[in-house]
Amino acid sequence: MERFRFITAGESHGKSLTAIIEGMVSGLPLEVEYINGELRRRQAGYGRSSRMKIEEDKVEIISGLWRGLTMGSPIALLIHNKGWREWEAEAVSSPRPGHADLAGVVKYGINDIRPVMERASARETAARVAVGAIAKRFLEELGIAIHSHTVAIGECHCEPGGAISIDWQRVEASPVRCAEAKLGKQMTAAIDKAKAEGDTLGGIFEVIASGVPVGLGSHVHWDRRLDGKIARAIISINAVKGVEIGDGFALSGLKGSQAHDIIEPSPSVIARSEATKQSLPWYRPTNHAGGIEGGISNGEDIVVSAAVKPIATLAKPLDSIDLRTGKKAAAHYERSDVCVVPAAGVIAEAMLAIVLVDACLEKFGGDSLKETLPNYRGYLSGISLWKS
Amino acid sequence: MERFRFITAGESHGKSLTAIIEGMVSGLPLEVEYINGELRRRQAGYGRSSRMKIEEDKVEIISGLWRGLTMGSPIALLIHNKGWREWEAEAVSSPRPGHADLAGVVKYGINDIRPVMERASARETAARVAVGAIAKRFLEELGIAIHSHTVAIGECHCEPGGAISIDWQRVEASPVRCAEAKLGKQMTAAIDKAKAEGDTLGGIFEVIASGVPVGLGSHVHWDRRLDGKIARAIISINAVKGVEIGDGFALSGLKGSQAHDIIEPSPSVIARSEATKQSLPWYRPTNHAGGIEGGISNGEDIVVSAAVKPIATLAKPLDSIDLRTGKKAAAHYERSDVCVVPAAGVIAEAMLAIVLVDACLEKFGGDSLKETLPNYRGYLSGISLWKS
Amino acid sequence: MERFRFITAGESHGKSLTAIIEGMVSGLPLEVEYINGELRRRQAGYGRSSRMKIEEDKVEIISGLWRGLTMGSPIALLIHNKGWREWEAEAVSSPRPGHADLAGVVKYGINDIRPVMERASARETAARVAVGAIAKRFLEELGIAIHSHTVAIGECHCEPGGAISIDWQRVEASPVRCAEAKLGKQMTAAIDKAKAEGDTLGGIFEVIASGVPVGLGSHVHWDRRLDGKIARAIISINAVKGVEIGDGFALSGLKGSQAHDIIEPSPSVIARSEATKQSLPWYRPTNHAGGIEGGISNGEDIVVSAAVKPIATLAKPLDSIDLRTGKKAAAHYERSDVCVVPAAGVIAEAMLAIVLVDACLEKFGGDSLKETLPNYRGYLSGISLWKS
Amino acid sequence: MERFRFITAGESHGKSLTAIIEGMVSGLPLEVEYINGELRRRQAGYGRSSRMKIEEDKVEIISGLWRGLTMGSPIALLIHNKGWREWEAEAVSSPRPGHADLAGVVKYGINDIRPVMERASARETAARVAVGAIAKRFLEELGIAIHSHTVAIGECHCEPGGAISIDWQRVEASPVRCAEAKLGKQMTAAIDKAKAEGDTLGGIFEVIASGVPVGLGSHVHWDRRLDGKIARAIISINAVKGVEIGDGFALSGLKGSQAHDIIEPSPSVIARSEATKQSLPWYRPTNHAGGIEGGISNGEDIVVSAAVKPIATLAKPLDSIDLRTGKKAAAHYERSDVCVVPAAGVIAEAMLAIVLVDACLEKFGGDSLKETLPNYRGYLSGISLWKS
Repeated sequence: MERFRFITAGESHGKSLTAIIEGMVSGLPLEVEYINGELRRRQAGYGRSSRMKIEEDKVEIISGLWRGLTMGSPIALLIHNKGWREWEAEAVSSPRPGHADLAGVVKYGINDIRPVMERASARETAARVAVGAIAKRFLEELGIAIHSHTVAIGECHCEPGGAISIDWQRVEASPVRCAEAKLGKQMTAAIDKAKAEGDTLGGIFEVIASGVPVGLGSHVHWDRRLDGKIARAIISINAVKGVEIGDGFALSGLKGSQAHDIIEPSPSVIARSEATKQSLPWYRPTNHAGGIEGGISNGEDIVVSAAVKPIATLAKPLDSIDLRTGKKAAAHYERSDVCVVPAAGVIAEAMLAIVLVDACLEKFGGDSLKETLPNYRGYLSGISLWKS
Repeated sequence: MERFRFITAGESHGKSLTAIIEGMVSGLPLEVEYINGELRRRQAGYGRSSRMKIEEDKVEIISGLWRGLTMGSPIALLIHNKGWREWEAEAVSSPRPGHADLAGVVKYGINDIRPVMERASARETAARVAVGAIAKRFLEELGIAIHSHTVAIGECHCEPGGAISIDWQRVEASPVRCAEAKLGKQMTAAIDKAKAEGDTLGGIFEVIASGVPVGLGSHVHWDRRLDGKIARAIISINAVKGVEIGDGFALSGLKGSQAHDIIEPSPSVIARSEATKQSLPWYRPTNHAGGIEGGISNGEDIVVSAAVKPIATLAKPLDSIDLRTGKKAAAHYERSDVCVVPAAGVIAEAMLAIVLVDACLEKFGGDSLKETLPNYRGYLSGISLWKS
Repeated sequence: MERFRFITAGESHGKSLTAIIEGMVSGLPLEVEYINGELRRRQAGYGRSSRMKIEEDKVEIISGLWRGLTMGSPIALLIHNKGWREWEAEAVSSPRPGHADLAGVVKYGINDIRPVMERASARETAARVAVGAIAKRFLEELGIAIHSHTVAIGECHCEPGGAISIDWQRVEASPVRCAEAKLGKQMTAAIDKAKAEGDTLGGIFEVIASGVPVGLGSHVHWDRRLDGKIARAIISINAVKGVEIGDGFALSGLKGSQAHDIIEPSPSVIARSEATKQSLPWYRPTNHAGGIEGGISNGEDIVVSAAVKPIATLAKPLDSIDLRTGKKAAAHYERSDVCVVPAAGVIAEAMLAIVLVDACLEKFGGDSLKETLPNYRGYLSGISLWKS
Repeated sequence: MERFRFITAGESHGKSLTAIIEGMVSGLPLEVEYINGELRRRQAGYGRSSRMKIEEDKVEIISGLWRGLTMGSPIALLIHNKGWREWEAEAVSSPRPGHADLAGVVKYGINDIRPVMERASARETAARVAVGAIAKRFLEELGIAIHSHTVAIGECHCEPGGAISIDWQRVEASPVRCAEAKLGKQMTAAIDKAKAEGDTLGGIFEVIASGVPVGLGSHVHWDRRLDGKIARAIISINAVKGVEIGDGFALSGLKGSQAHDIIEPSPSVIARSEATKQSLPWYRPTNHAGGIEGGISNGEDIVVSAAVKPIATLAKPLDSIDLRTGKKAAAHYERSDVCVVPAAGVIAEAMLAIVLVDACLEKFGGDSLKETLPNYRGYLSGISLWKS
């Protein structure tokens, strides 16, 4: 059983999304508006359908709070669907290539694509972002921050480079969550063009966690590796088809002498995070590894990139068949986005936060913030060169 | 609790590797030589150190078999280390960049890198390959086959293309497990060059499962998605830094109209696998999705690629520090491989097999082969267009 | 990860209880009224406080249903608390002996017992009963039925004996869920007396599953044993302090020649369940083992008894201390029941159903009722003597 | 995934038992002889067959140790079976009532009872005791000690009473692990009598953990409750049919005013354990609850009793059938014990230790003893009355 777990429920056009979180420590201050802020970030982004304006997601915390603090008990969240409608009556029989539609009806033995569509929709990720907001809230207390930005949309691609110089305020202000203003404009133009053509676009996002302590995950068994848990969580986001840690695929073309992050004596002990005053008696000039070596966080920023395929619901539908007849038919279409890469980055922040909370609670233990924090600080302060 | 689970133990230079598998059905014929064959495949590959010849891995099945059949009980495997030595005496204090060394000693609070090195070594993957061999044996009964080939070593890279035309016998005969003879020669030359320079190389492998039924994994909850489980398993292989399903990152640059696999009426029902006679009343001319849509297998080949970084143990060591003094020092070196991409592909076959066995047993149930197979066939035979 | 899992949330006096269920097959017909019926059974029972009348629990199914059928997606349930009030303002500082109060505030580092009380309250079991109702609905399709009855309240105790002759309609009609009318009257009298004295009573219930197939659980590993899973689920019910399978503790005093259920040739093949037509080519005249041998269901009724301690909230409070001062103080009191043994039996039905659904889905697999049922029937029909 | 997990493998007459443990912290001193000592305790006990002398179990630690310390890596253990023989040739067709035999062959679809017998045998518990020894070793560092004693064998039953006055050295010296010398003699006589009659005896053991901190387990969700985890672990021991926490079933007959453990101001802060200096600012004169309230450890001794049914392999075999013919036949017999209650207590110590290690690591975190211990002590020292 995971230390921190959750289940989400809800259909795209159902009454509401629901999530229950179990395993959060007590004593964490939590405000509804903090969660709503993350929900807004997910809904923003050039290329979303007009539904985004309809929704204006707001969370209702049904249980798990006491005087504004978590209390160790499960936290239940509701996000009402303003786009609610009588979806059960709307049968669909032409599966959309690229979606769960066809495999879903076979797996679950249902002679209607609608029930599969309703759950496979990325609408569900609103619930994950709400869960992830609570995870982020906890990580803040440990001095861990998570951000994302858009690296590519369609053929518009950032120059390769690190996350060191990213201005996160600029990213948040960008309609495509791009750190480079000029590229951002190209991206919006590409989205406009795709929309006009009845087409869709994918892209690449990068998600970065800073302030992560050395020692999350483990090399001792394959299923304790932090990179594995992260990869699973990120690729679970709708439309993600690839994931990289650090320089990822680019590393495969380098020599060993180029690919690794050498270790240097620290000129002086450097404070890495204001909140935790984490410091290490060594220094890495580079971070090709994306903060994970041997399945363990190494104290550098955790950097994860992911490939988002273009949305599979097209205004100009793809070829498909009608499952009632087996004859050729256009794939089902209903209102959809043109590009979700910026939103996918926000969802990835949530998923990464969830993985890190679980890893932190596994390593540092504790059932209340006031128990976990001293454990965390004690561990950090014990990191040193070896005393002879 | 997973339906199919295992734990491995053992140090690189310890007495032996051990694995216990729990959850395999009864009645599966299993021969030691079958497992040994997979172990040999892992040990082969141009670029391995001379240790590979020393080892000649052989498995001993300690328990779990009855008259050559599994019996539903845990299966214990031993692989004796011929390279056994008194490793505990060999202290190491200069961490190798790119390895678990530094993060590992911090995490586990050990003032010696040796215990971390011994377990973080890819030697452990021999145990996984043995477990995976049993998984493959089971999948064979369902008509599922798994292969891997090397797509790139260093800068030598295959042309982009599908898995349709791969001659697996040629791959098995290639010293670098490359399907293209000419490219294979370039790869071995690149390895020779890297070796001469005291350097190492990474690369890319592709692993393909054919005969996979529609319906493994699920869209209904993030942690039931098959792609997530696969990504976690593959990235858990030492040195893997990125993973793709199907066309992966390449999909991120395409338009929706180009990226998806359209569904066509099947000209006639096509037998997809001799063993299972799986057939589907539709047809996909392409497989960009790599056999997974919405987190569910869609009946096409499952295609996974992964980036392997160059080995972090270099004959010409990288800069590091001595953890006893904090002063600059060359990273520790001991005999190591130059390139492990072909072996990584074989290990990935094992990990993919393990994930698929778990997914198949979850979906089809059964405690004996004679219970599972009818369930499996019954499901397959029920896949059809919708009767009106 | 379990095949069938759920999380509940909610405080005793919070807005509502919530539950999300994940892993149920698709195609199961499910009516709100079926769940409400089980909720009513939990609320009935002589000895409950007047709150039971206030509550009149009704479930709202928020998601997971499509045209009255499950669809494989998570099922979210809400049970609104009619007894809702501003509980956060009501601080409590004198822990009730026998409750989670004292250990809870220490564990979670909270300087108020209220948050612990609100979650540790047996009010939460309403959510479990709702989940269990869905589990029961599924088991019905397999021909498995679950009942409970009260064996003892305080010193009023049934004669030892089996479950063979129980008239379940009579049990349902009894205010204390007792199968023996005369004893039931003594039980209500005992409750009246305890209430008058400001005291509380415990007792013993028995829960019985009939129609259970041979082969759930396993002997091959300790954590696959069905008895272990059942014991955990039953003892997790508030106030349960002991659990027995079959004759339980009574078996410890017998000789081996008396304690086991001999196996006899079946005079003819006996249909055991109308729904499944389960039949076995052997026969057991007794069921001391309570349907489980070696951790595996053996085809007989699964019989589980549990000891319920008297309620720890007493109108005439026990001695305690005030945690603000360390001085002696009466334990906190607020409206509570006098005896919950009948309700505990109903909750145990739910917990047993949940365990059995997980065990059935693990063994028989399937993602839809129409996939699982043929697997189930195929297995049953294959049970036979050994062909030579 | 549990924080502390293990898998065992091995048949009763196979080459050896194997266990792999994953999740133990690094830095724990561990000696082979410590484990062997626990194996000897399991093998002792009046009523065991002569096989016990043959076996003289000795463990071999294959991996996971470095200079006598754990290193965070999986620990592999082998226990060679001196009673090894060619069991695969010894077919059995008459199932023993009370064993896994009949249900096992049905479940696993095997036309021979032998493979089921070999794994269902209590021989497997030697591996658990070895695992449990390592768990105990860890708990010692936290000041937690675990003991067991025999409460009843057949009709010879201790007077009801607490664990306060037990002289554990006397228990260890008793051939039946009974704390009362006179009763112990009656027990051995009862065993002699049963043996002479070709019969077997069961009984009751009690296992007690002292020095357990307040706050293991939780009330917040059913599957986090400590009592549930303990009950599952204990009932998973071969032949156990019932389990009680504290006074268990006896509590069901009491009034609330009698059944609970009142809380008193502590006359002075009492040191509870030399190792941890655990102390609490309150006091309980009684421990009816067996150290667990609301699913959480409350700082008192954890007291668990369990009912062991008489061994199902009888020298004077029970009635059964021959599964090849369906005709009446005597159940299979082979050399077996007459009474295993004392051994079952030792096994229960191991299982309880395993549960407590998992609970401690979940609560206190840490990857090395030197990380976990300060967390543990910090938590204990923070337990206090509420500061105003």
